[in-house]
Amino acid sequence: MTLVWLDGALVPAAVARIDPTDRGFTLGDGLFETIAVRDGRGQRLEAHFARLRSGADVIGLPVPLSDDALADAVASVAADNGLGDAAVRLTLTAGPGPRGLPRPDPARPTVLMTAGPLPPPLPPARLIVARGTCRNERSPLSRIKSTNYLDSILARREAEAAGADDAVMLNTAGRVAEATAANIFLQLDCGWVTPPVEEGALPGVMRAAMIEAWAAAERPVTVDDLGRADAIMLTTALGLREARLL
Amino acid sequence: MTLVWLDGALVPAAVARIDPTDRGFTLGDGLFETIAVRDGRGQRLEAHFARLRSGADVIGLPVPLSDDALADAVASVAADNGLGDAAVRLTLTAGPGPRGLPRPDPARPTVLMTAGPLPPPLPPARLIVARGTCRNERSPLSRIKSTNYLDSILARREAEAAGADDAVMLNTAGRVAEATAANIFLQLDCGWVTPPVEEGALPGVMRAAMIEAWAAAERPVTVDDLGRADAIMLTTALGLREARLL
Repeated sequence: MTLVWLDGALVPAAVARIDPTDRGFTLGDGLFETIAVRDGRGQRLEAHFARLRSGADVIGLPVPLSDDALADAVASVAADNGLGDAAVRLTLTAGPGPRGLPRPDPARPTVLMTAGPLPPPLPPARLIVARGTCRNERSPLSRIKSTNYLDSILARREAEAAGADDAVMLNTAGRVAEATAANIFLQLDCGWVTPPVEEGALPGVMRAAMIEAWAAAERPVTVDDLGRADAIMLTTALGLREARLL
Repeated sequence: MTLVWLDGALVPAAVARIDPTDRGFTLGDGLFETIAVRDGRGQRLEAHFARLRSGADVIGLPVPLSDDALADAVASVAADNGLGDAAVRLTLTAGPGPRGLPRPDPARPTVLMTAGPLPPPLPPARLIVARGTCRNERSPLSRIKSTNYLDSILARREAEAAGADDAVMLNTAGRVAEATAANIFLQLDCGWVTPPVEEGALPGVMRAAMIEAWAAAERPVTVDDLGRADAIMLTTALGLREARLL
């Protein structure tokens, strides 16, 4: 029986209830983190929780739990589902509220954690450049991990319709921002480069780790750069995946 | 007891359950309409349902009900809550699914309708121009009523922090798109003008009606235009509201 952690309790997924007025459901008023658990231990928790709190500050939402309590919940939702290795998703929303944009005061945020198996290693991703939509690097949302993922869903659908696995999303200036749910690194002129956050790249937890590990340069990346890269790598909190243009 | 219409049944709001894996909750993979009901009759239903289907086409989501069935549900969720006049919100999401961007195939969309009282007439709205974020007129999402409302929530928070009621949202070119949850009309040089959809204005149902009623011109609107307008009007499906810059 699959269990989820919802507002402080582990409950069977089949009966866990999100209120129909939850602003995460009605208005996308929420944030999330996807966290790798290996051998029962959450990976890079400090970075994940720091990003969550930073995003919550941007949208003005309280995080109703301490980092320790969040870490305990991450561990228990994996362990109680019998998963030593897991992908845990933490979702924080503004909770239930009446119709309209203003949040109730005080807000009663919803915190949900779900666990599933880590994805298996995947073959290199075949990429297209999404032309149907783009990331808005002028919005603060491009720098926080909000649940407003419909642009990414559209770009992924565009990729699948073209027989590709994923899409490179451009920013409003037409430069590379990231993939639909991963940061992107290019090997160019014998070094790694990745688009800066100001270009619409989400400040990914693994992105930060790889910038350090690879001594990668953060600089604007063009579509031409994609074509001439010696290698392309996609990074998420769950791992790395090679990629090439379709 | 408040009732909601959820996937074909009227159920008490207190027990109505959205699944924690609903993609509307996890990824903002959804659309909505806000519909005025007066004397038991849904207003401009044809336009609302046409926009819903158009948005569903853009994001590739099936609408699992006929227009007649949707109209019946709008009427019954109002009537069974004892409301002759009501604001009915219709939410359509991609329904439950596993972690990740691709939808399950086939999708099992969620359809939710909730009803509340129509808002009372409001005094003129005091507006600011939001500077913290903007609408992305280069994304198809600017032309459909998706649940990805966090940019609007940020702009509304900016307005409230400034002592205003609402914010004018600009597009990525710095021109006027709309208010945070309303279209905007300006009286300029003895005629009404409103930003075109290509400028990031949602194709509002009331907007279309007022363009016709006022013989309004659709043309790009600048921040300077806001300052020199003889009158400003905000339009939503629930009504009109005068506005002025703070």
